[in-house]
Amino acid sequence: MKDMSFFDDYEVGFDIPAKPGMLEDEVQTPALVLDLDALERNIKKMGDYAKAHGMRHRVHGKMHKSVDVALLQVELGGACGVCCQKVSEAEVFARGGIKDVLVSNQVREPAKIDRLARMPKLGARTICCVDDLANVADLSAAAVKHGTQIECLVEIDCGAGRCGVTTTPEVVEIAKAIDAADGLKFAGIQAYQGAMQHMDSYDERKAKIDIAVAQVKDAVDTLAAEGIECDIVGGGGTGSYYFESNSGVYNELQCGSYAFMDADYGRILDKDGKRIDQGEWENALFILTSVMSHAKADKAIVDAGLKAQSVDSGLPVIYGRDDVEYVKCSDEHGVVMDPQGVLKVNDKLKLVPGHCDPTCNVHDWYVGVRNGVVETVWPVSARGRAY
Amino acid sequence: MKDMSFFDDYEVGFDIPAKPGMLEDEVQTPALVLDLDALERNIKKMGDYAKAHGMRHRVHGKMHKSVDVALLQVELGGACGVCCQKVSEAEVFARGGIKDVLVSNQVREPAKIDRLARMPKLGARTICCVDDLANVADLSAAAVKHGTQIECLVEIDCGAGRCGVTTTPEVVEIAKAIDAADGLKFAGIQAYQGAMQHMDSYDERKAKIDIAVAQVKDAVDTLAAEGIECDIVGGGGTGSYYFESNSGVYNELQCGSYAFMDADYGRILDKDGKRIDQGEWENALFILTSVMSHAKADKAIVDAGLKAQSVDSGLPVIYGRDDVEYVKCSDEHGVVMDPQGVLKVNDKLKLVPGHCDPTCNVHDWYVGVRNGVVETVWPVSARGRAY
Repeated sequence: MKDMSFFDDYEVGFDIPAKPGMLEDEVQTPALVLDLDALERNIKKMGDYAKAHGMRHRVHGKMHKSVDVALLQVELGGACGVCCQKVSEAEVFARGGIKDVLVSNQVREPAKIDRLARMPKLGARTICCVDDLANVADLSAAAVKHGTQIECLVEIDCGAGRCGVTTTPEVVEIAKAIDAADGLKFAGIQAYQGAMQHMDSYDERKAKIDIAVAQVKDAVDTLAAEGIECDIVGGGGTGSYYFESNSGVYNELQCGSYAFMDADYGRILDKDGKRIDQGEWENALFILTSVMSHAKADKAIVDAGLKAQSVDSGLPVIYGRDDVEYVKCSDEHGVVMDPQGVLKVNDKLKLVPGHCDPTCNVHDWYVGVRNGVVETVWPVSARGRAY
Repeated sequence: MKDMSFFDDYEVGFDIPAKPGMLEDEVQTPALVLDLDALERNIKKMGDYAKAHGMRHRVHGKMHKSVDVALLQVELGGACGVCCQKVSEAEVFARGGIKDVLVSNQVREPAKIDRLARMPKLGARTICCVDDLANVADLSAAAVKHGTQIECLVEIDCGAGRCGVTTTPEVVEIAKAIDAADGLKFAGIQAYQGAMQHMDSYDERKAKIDIAVAQVKDAVDTLAAEGIECDIVGGGGTGSYYFESNSGVYNELQCGSYAFMDADYGRILDKDGKRIDQGEWENALFILTSVMSHAKADKAIVDAGLKAQSVDSGLPVIYGRDDVEYVKCSDEHGVVMDPQGVLKVNDKLKLVPGHCDPTCNVHDWYVGVRNGVVETVWPVSARGRAY
């Protein structure tokens, strides 16, 4: 058992849902619980996959926002570093000991550019994305001012419809500008197809990635013809990593949700038509919730509502039960249909959240459980770092 | 200007989005911004209304989770105290100086009951709800153990379909048990009709509350006939407070959203068919967001996605603009249609969130602004206190 003095100042039930050594059943609800065995198996499996396919894996820290999970992904899963979406979030990972941090997003606001330019002083390789020529001069000036180097990826919009340029000439123009700018280093291409990750059909997902791969290959080949090499060609998520890994173009994966799983991702199908949460990945993340009222015979009210999860991608699913169903979510309550009246007050249920990323973001702590006992409590280190 | 040494340890852009004295335009986005003038007018208006109608106003702290806002509601709005939904949340308000705190919810888990029983030692009148006879003995034992008093309201489910009993005999049975239990005091009735607050039509809302009022009146009258008086008959929200105030049965309001407003509440209509955000209440809460990419001519990408808000009740509305529209929300990005290409990178927009409560719960700070200058930065004191 590690040194637990860290927790001396924390009060269970006020500051923190549990302390190491408690039984899972004593955890104050609602709380995020991690099945550490399942988490470790997921991390090891993706790490082995990436290694076997000659891919680097830059794990997506925006999903869990946890330095502890990221360090486990580095140690156990061989991750090369993390990506995340905000400068303040990147700083948390850099301060926490991650040595290679990509802000896989645009950084435009002057104060944020300044912070980004200072990040290498925390000991981390610092990378960001660019989709606008006008950004290059600002990034360069900040890096020069602080005597640091910012590496830059040109972001290609390969179907997500958010940030990123859409044509190879734009990629080449921006890459050349980065290459020529003091304090910057052109590092390659960012091309994450976010819009297809949650399509149920394997073939439909493949068709979307085929388009993306062709688009990225054209840019990479054109850059090479101009003498500009891409150290990083990054993208790929939990619903697509096998496509990027076999593309011959991408060399870095950026998967996030595979480590925890959620109900929305779990529903997508692998190449054999099997749900990916039925073999490919295990549910490692749960919202532990308690029945707090059962005043109606067929309906239990649980203590996990909108303050304990995000329902943007659908309601949570009750893990391992088909006799009860979570049917409604309000601010503080969940309504669980219990037609046979099997639940009692204070019974606990494990919910698989609809969408892991924004669900983790409303909690302060992960309670790590093994064999029914709390083994560790990890802070959601970058929660709230949205700037 | 107050003593600002509180902020000395906080770094703008990492820990905190702004410090007092900064211009609104320098606030690091995404951030919650409060228009202090509008907030104060809303608070004063509801306070005056309650006073004029002989109602106590127990403001709903679950909405803002802020001790500072609650204290303003006491001082400026004459609020008698707060209600909130969780014991850990109630403790934050009690520790922050609120003297009368209702957990307007069931408290069932042994460790939480124990904490509730200790709350009077923080100097606050402590009240909770009960909807199950079995709870009475547990609450009583904890109060006796700590030598304190817990006041109890019997919760009636008057249409929300969550916690609460539905018949007068059940109310009377539980009230008598509370009355007879050591360490407890029967304090009245909790009857909040949550399900109707967001119905657009005034007449439809009135019809639902008429049913609730009849149900509550029957319980109150039956209790009185048994010699049991209700100090508190509480309920009422931003979509209904005028009905409860004129019911002759309720004596306490529990409004929350009126102070901040949001897009979903704003759409409901008053008795003259006018939206309640067009005169009755002002938008005081905004998500300040920045344009971070405009790589496509007709589409701006802003930095407020699901980590900066909850979209359970719909997408945010861009305040004061009809030339641009927020049309899609992903984890880290918002897509804003900009058909005329009027937006530029780093332009700021003010979003009215779809639903204020769970949106406030993903932020750590309120940036209080007056006349374009940051006047104060308040912690979202009870954020994350979901147990």
